[in-house]
Amino acid sequence: MSDSSDHLHLNAFLMGVGHHEAAWRHPRTEARRILDIAHFQELARIAERGRLDSVFFADGLAVGPRVEHNTQAIFEPITLLSAMAVVTEHVGLIATASTGYNDPYNLARKFASLDHISKGRAGWNIVTSGGADEARNFGYDDTPDHAGRYERAAEFVDVTVALWDSWEDDAIELDVDSGRFADPSKVHAVDHHGERFDVRGPLNSPRSRQGRPVLVQAGSSESGKDFAARYAEAVFTAQRTLEEGRAFYRDLKSRVVEAGRDPRALKILPGIVPFIGATEDEARALEQEFTDLISPAYSLRQLSTMLGVDLTEHSLDAPLPPLPPIDRIEGNKSRYQLVKNLAEKENLTVRQLIGKLGGGRGHRTVAGTPEQIADEIQLWFGSEAADGFNVMPPYLPGGLEDFTTQVVPILQQRGLFRTEYTADTLRGHYGLERPASRFAATAERLVDTA
Amino acid sequence: MSDSSDHLHLNAFLMGVGHHEAAWRHPRTEARRILDIAHFQELARIAERGRLDSVFFADGLAVGPRVEHNTQAIFEPITLLSAMAVVTEHVGLIATASTGYNDPYNLARKFASLDHISKGRAGWNIVTSGGADEARNFGYDDTPDHAGRYERAAEFVDVTVALWDSWEDDAIELDVDSGRFADPSKVHAVDHHGERFDVRGPLNSPRSRQGRPVLVQAGSSESGKDFAARYAEAVFTAQRTLEEGRAFYRDLKSRVVEAGRDPRALKILPGIVPFIGATEDEARALEQEFTDLISPAYSLRQLSTMLGVDLTEHSLDAPLPPLPPIDRIEGNKSRYQLVKNLAEKENLTVRQLIGKLGGGRGHRTVAGTPEQIADEIQLWFGSEAADGFNVMPPYLPGGLEDFTTQVVPILQQRGLFRTEYTADTLRGHYGLERPASRFAATAERLVDTA
Repeated sequence: MSDSSDHLHLNAFLMGVGHHEAAWRHPRTEARRILDIAHFQELARIAERGRLDSVFFADGLAVGPRVEHNTQAIFEPITLLSAMAVVTEHVGLIATASTGYNDPYNLARKFASLDHISKGRAGWNIVTSGGADEARNFGYDDTPDHAGRYERAAEFVDVTVALWDSWEDDAIELDVDSGRFADPSKVHAVDHHGERFDVRGPLNSPRSRQGRPVLVQAGSSESGKDFAARYAEAVFTAQRTLEEGRAFYRDLKSRVVEAGRDPRALKILPGIVPFIGATEDEARALEQEFTDLISPAYSLRQLSTMLGVDLTEHSLDAPLPPLPPIDRIEGNKSRYQLVKNLAEKENLTVRQLIGKLGGGRGHRTVAGTPEQIADEIQLWFGSEAADGFNVMPPYLPGGLEDFTTQVVPILQQRGLFRTEYTADTLRGHYGLERPASRFAATAERLVDTA
Repeated sequence: MSDSSDHLHLNAFLMGVGHHEAAWRHPRTEARRILDIAHFQELARIAERGRLDSVFFADGLAVGPRVEHNTQAIFEPITLLSAMAVVTEHVGLIATASTGYNDPYNLARKFASLDHISKGRAGWNIVTSGGADEARNFGYDDTPDHAGRYERAAEFVDVTVALWDSWEDDAIELDVDSGRFADPSKVHAVDHHGERFDVRGPLNSPRSRQGRPVLVQAGSSESGKDFAARYAEAVFTAQRTLEEGRAFYRDLKSRVVEAGRDPRALKILPGIVPFIGATEDEARALEQEFTDLISPAYSLRQLSTMLGVDLTEHSLDAPLPPLPPIDRIEGNKSRYQLVKNLAEKENLTVRQLIGKLGGGRGHRTVAGTPEQIADEIQLWFGSEAADGFNVMPPYLPGGLEDFTTQVVPILQQRGLFRTEYTADTLRGHYGLERPASRFAATAERLVDTA
């Protein structure tokens, strides 16, 4: 681990003109910018000026029920991050991609490409694609079952990492005199023959400056946590209270240890949706402005999809109807559980639930002064509830600008966050070791034994 | 067709530090730049200063037999072109992608993303992936048969184009007052149910400024030509003599007419590898310098793969051994035929053949003054052998810089090539019409009938 593991880590989770579902209707945003690459390049520059570890895009492979009332993820994340990589030098670039609807060889190549373009700043947020809408765009009638999705994901990641390792670090020679481009003895077939994939390799891309892209994961179901414990180097999660956050942190770190890994090799970053004001009242008033712009019709459809029950004819001022048991949910189980708990614990009407969810789809919203938000972050970081935060600005670029220019300096003054970048790769920012190629390691072991 | 169809079209086919297989060993290049995104961004800027229609990257999904002696395609083309899009404003950006080893939904999305990032400058060079090395990276022992590959490609393109059409041009409303992001009646499922693909749609990306990416194709086999006649808007081809070029041009344009399309809706661009010198002798000496750097061992392996026969133990100074019949070739049939014809017609030894192929793998090499190269281009353009050229600089960036600053001005003076961009999309540059969404067209027809 590098020194930077003493600091907290901050990722900017970016989405169109903001995470709040009505962000595009608020005067602090310009809705048309969701289609403008310059907007996203500006976000990357703001994050870098704030010395953030990374920026990140979620993704889905279907339009879903949102087309009428909410903005879409127009750009495919890897393509988008490539255009953002070339206007920045330090900030990490994390793209979501599905193990359900890709081939390992193609996806390994695309991430390797982004990793080379950014000179070692790429990360992969691994998702398994639970939606039926997505399944129907790839030749399936229904969603593959939850456990099967994670089995596929595990094999997919195994193959992908092997492909990223297939060139040893010093394989490229570019020896002009001998005419030798690469040393063929250092470029390895991976010869994977598994349950779901047969891939020969090697990848047609050498290793990157950081060895290989950082593996990120965001599912918090039982299968999700086991998967994360085995593979993930950073986890994005939705935790609404300090108590829940601490329990999740303890649980996941102990699973990492059980999986035989150093618990510091996985960073846990809960989501936070900050509404920032000069006073707490001002911040709350700003949050209310956004809540008032939510379209209930849209929210009902979204909530129906999330909970597996039709709410579109349900009264807004009644509590939730009985929900199906979690084992009937084939989509995002952890999000289902979170929303169900929230509604039950706080005894919310559907209208109240929609307001609570509007900012960050279940992630924790904090409205307050920069000082108050920094306090919250420090509290969680100091209470073993977080290694840092997944910052989800409700509106963009203003919400990110405010966070980096008002909250970050306070964290820096308190010695909790870097004042300058001390590394130039994503692994370096997160304090993760640069992994050796498995093939190089084998060669060394053979030498040791000899 | 726009006015620009009176002009010839020029595409820069880019590859690492040059098309010549030994380019990276020549003092005019810096081999390490194959890994540097700034190199590729510079190439895009040079092409744009030269007012070229587009730049283009080939691609393959395996390392192949080349790793020891030749540089590789390190970057995945769509990711790479995204980083080049944001430092240019006009030049078109064409990426190769395989119909054999992708899903239509993902690929449609990635190209739509590049098309939005570049504001309407994306093109797709459709390849079917004939190599056994590629097949083995995707779970197949062998190459799918040639005809089957083209059947899959046809269905793949049908689905992809439908997905690109799934949002009508005015589907996005972004109406802040009503809270309506898009008009759901203008976002259409494609409901494709075919032999190989079942895709519901719509795509999670709206239409781009040019409607949809330009379709490009490069196979010149019988299946390839039929496919091009039906789908392609530009064709890259290898033609070595004016006579062959005219025959190919006549053949393909008549197939386009048979397919019910305007022959001007498909632009034919033969490849040309220009060695440019102040005098013809200087140009020829430069070409010889590159030929002298070729490694015979590498070339023998490459030629063996291309011709389906092992030449690695064959004498360099003997003619080719008997070759297998073309129906036994499962890879690139048109390249096989071209190389076979070349060797037989000119009665070449293997060594001579390797020298001829080294510059452009079978494409036509012309060594001469800028005036002579412009003459050649004008001759082909005026003889119905070409609508323009696929310019393959043997070394980069110098070879592209020389072409755009020395040959292009002559073509401009002769009134054959644009002096300023008259359009801002790739379709515009090629004089292609902006296609209406098929769904919008249906709606209009319904109105007409009513």
